[in-house]
Amino acid sequence: HKIVTLPGDGIGPEIMASALEILQAATAGTDFTYEVTEMPFGGAGIDAKGHPFPEETQAALQTADAILLGAIGGPQWHDASVTPEQGLLQMRALLGLYANVRPVRLADSLVHLSPLKEERVKGTDMVIVRELIGGIYFGKPKYREGDEAFDTMYYNRGMIERIARYAFEVAQTRRGHVTSVDKANVLANSRLWRETVNEVAQDYPDVQVEHLYVDAAAMKLITKPTDFDVILTENLFGDILSDEASVIPGSLGLLPSASISAEQAALYEPIHGSAPDIAGQALANPMSMILSVTMMLRQSFGEEVLADRIEEACQAVMAEGIFTKDLGGQASTTDFTQAVIRKLQ
Amino acid sequence: HKIVTLPGDGIGPEIMASALEILQAATAGTDFTYEVTEMPFGGAGIDAKGHPFPEETQAALQTADAILLGAIGGPQWHDASVTPEQGLLQMRALLGLYANVRPVRLADSLVHLSPLKEERVKGTDMVIVRELIGGIYFGKPKYREGDEAFDTMYYNRGMIERIARYAFEVAQTRRGHVTSVDKANVLANSRLWRETVNEVAQDYPDVQVEHLYVDAAAMKLITKPTDFDVILTENLFGDILSDEASVIPGSLGLLPSASISAEQAALYEPIHGSAPDIAGQALANPMSMILSVTMMLRQSFGEEVLADRIEEACQAVMAEGIFTKDLGGQASTTDFTQAVIRKLQ
Ligand SMILES: CC(C)[C@H](C(=O)O)[C@@H](O)C(=O)O
Ligand SMILES: CC(C)[C@H](C(=O)O)[C@@H](O)C(=O)O
Repeated sequence: HKIVTLPGDGIGPEIMASALEILQAATAGTDFTYEVTEMPFGGAGIDAKGHPFPEETQAALQTADAILLGAIGGPQWHDASVTPEQGLLQMRALLGLYANVRPVRLADSLVHLSPLKEERVKGTDMVIVRELIGGIYFGKPKYREGDEAFDTMYYNRGMIERIARYAFEVAQTRRGHVTSVDKANVLANSRLWRETVNEVAQDYPDVQVEHLYVDAAAMKLITKPTDFDVILTENLFGDILSDEASVIPGSLGLLPSASISAEQAALYEPIHGSAPDIAGQALANPMSMILSVTMMLRQSFGEEVLADRIEEACQAVMAEGIFTKDLGGQASTTDFTQAVIRKLQ
Repeated sequence: HKIVTLPGDGIGPEIMASALEILQAATAGTDFTYEVTEMPFGGAGIDAKGHPFPEETQAALQTADAILLGAIGGPQWHDASVTPEQGLLQMRALLGLYANVRPVRLADSLVHLSPLKEERVKGTDMVIVRELIGGIYFGKPKYREGDEAFDTMYYNRGMIERIARYAFEVAQTRRGHVTSVDKANVLANSRLWRETVNEVAQDYPDVQVEHLYVDAAAMKLITKPTDFDVILTENLFGDILSDEASVIPGSLGLLPSASISAEQAALYEPIHGSAPDIAGQALANPMSMILSVTMMLRQSFGEEVLADRIEEACQAVMAEGIFTKDLGGQASTTDFTQAVIRKLQ
């Protein structure tokens, strides 16, 4: 299996190193063999090659079986002619990463960390499926002309159908419920969205579908987070709602994500940013990166047992009270990593 | 003073009646005289005149000194050729209601109602200033053609400057801090927005300005709501973020809003919908409508003392433990209203 890693910036390299060590420990002596190729991306791409998404990196990704991304960005690249974030958008487009998938689950033992009251939040277990290469991110025309600015939100039926099928299939493996989020009382795109989602729903009679306006969804994520199973939405709404949902578990350091392509390798990454304020101090929680690796093992390689073993080892370490700072503990990134490796051995 | 009322649908007429009775009790024997003209709007407009925003209503609003709106919408009008919600959008455009202003404040005595933990939420006191007649709501082209859909987000410098000045002026009467929310890493509109806000900021050296991406803002509203003073944002982001913020106090029944025009009367309304499920049962909390009336007294008529008196009477009634159902009490809309009137007398 060819895994390309893009450690990126800030805490990215630290948590990537941790997750790769754990992967190595977990696979030692098993049939699962892999090779890792590290490539520059983001700010690291600008520093090494003058571009956040260098040509060598583009080429490497196109022959990969799976991609792991740490985190990108930082103040030193805010004025770059092409920013790390623009590099990320280019990568999504080039690889056709049309579905961004974010599970938001809350371990009972960590409920106390949530900013929401425990009785509201206990049992939260949802997956957000966000369309990632359409909508107002990529629609044309998009330009500034003197004192005026234009952005275009664009979808066609095929784009909506593809992401909707993905969400319904995820729902079939879960509680069988899809909440499709739109703004059909204002947007032409949302009316096409709703119509198409309803058509796709016909093919999944075992899945229940409900439609919610984005403003109502933003409320319900806080008032009734346990009501959601799969949330299906377009690019911009997904950006906002998935970040809103990500703070429910109390630490961004716990949440992985996958971005799926129809033709190319999938990409796995933590949902958080590069946290330049704590970079290089071994303070970061590597869980989000470790769980990105277990998502990869399951989704790209079908290695359920291996993924379970790693996740159980992490749970066992946390059950012993070994937590990084974001979870109220004192373990360094390395302490936590070594503890997980000992469990695996 | 000519006040035009649009009771609208669902619980709209009930809470409007309550607020007007209280206004009458509070102004009896004072210099403040006014006349009330009630006009059909929303579903009530469709039922009475075949259109949510009938011509008579349009004419009446253009000679009003202030407008009070109850709430609109309901399942029976979902398939109307022009929906109540479209009528609302037409009204915003016709009257040039460019600024939507929503205070979100949390009384210490009601902190326990919040879905957020008390230590996070205590002291929350922000105002959201949302641009209301631009952006992707009104930009052209906006259309559906076969299997494709297009919406246009559009702003020009003048539109941004006007709403920014409004927000900075609100901040000057408060803690002097503006958080401008955009998505400048993706949208041409947001880059123009940020540049214009920074220019306007030069004229308000006593106000501190900070920029936040909309996804980060959606997180921070939950993790650090007390950090916000004035939030300034465009139409769609304002729709989502103001609804997200509105659930922080625990009941939508407490929150008023104002929509401001440069040329016409301002409009005051609760932030919640018409709640058809509880309509006609005297279960609704009239506070959001009463506070809409006090916002009107302050902002349209400069009647600070009168507004204070009404708000103090409401506080006193709640301090006695008289609460409507949404706040955990048993008082009906009428019970609560009569109790406030007794306090005022
Ligand atoms: C960096 C930015 C362009 C990106 C987005 O808006 O998609 C980020 O917020 C994300 O969600 O991955
Ligand atoms: C009804 C709808 C068009 C409206 C909006 O999106 O502006 C509503 O959600 C609001 O916020 O007043």
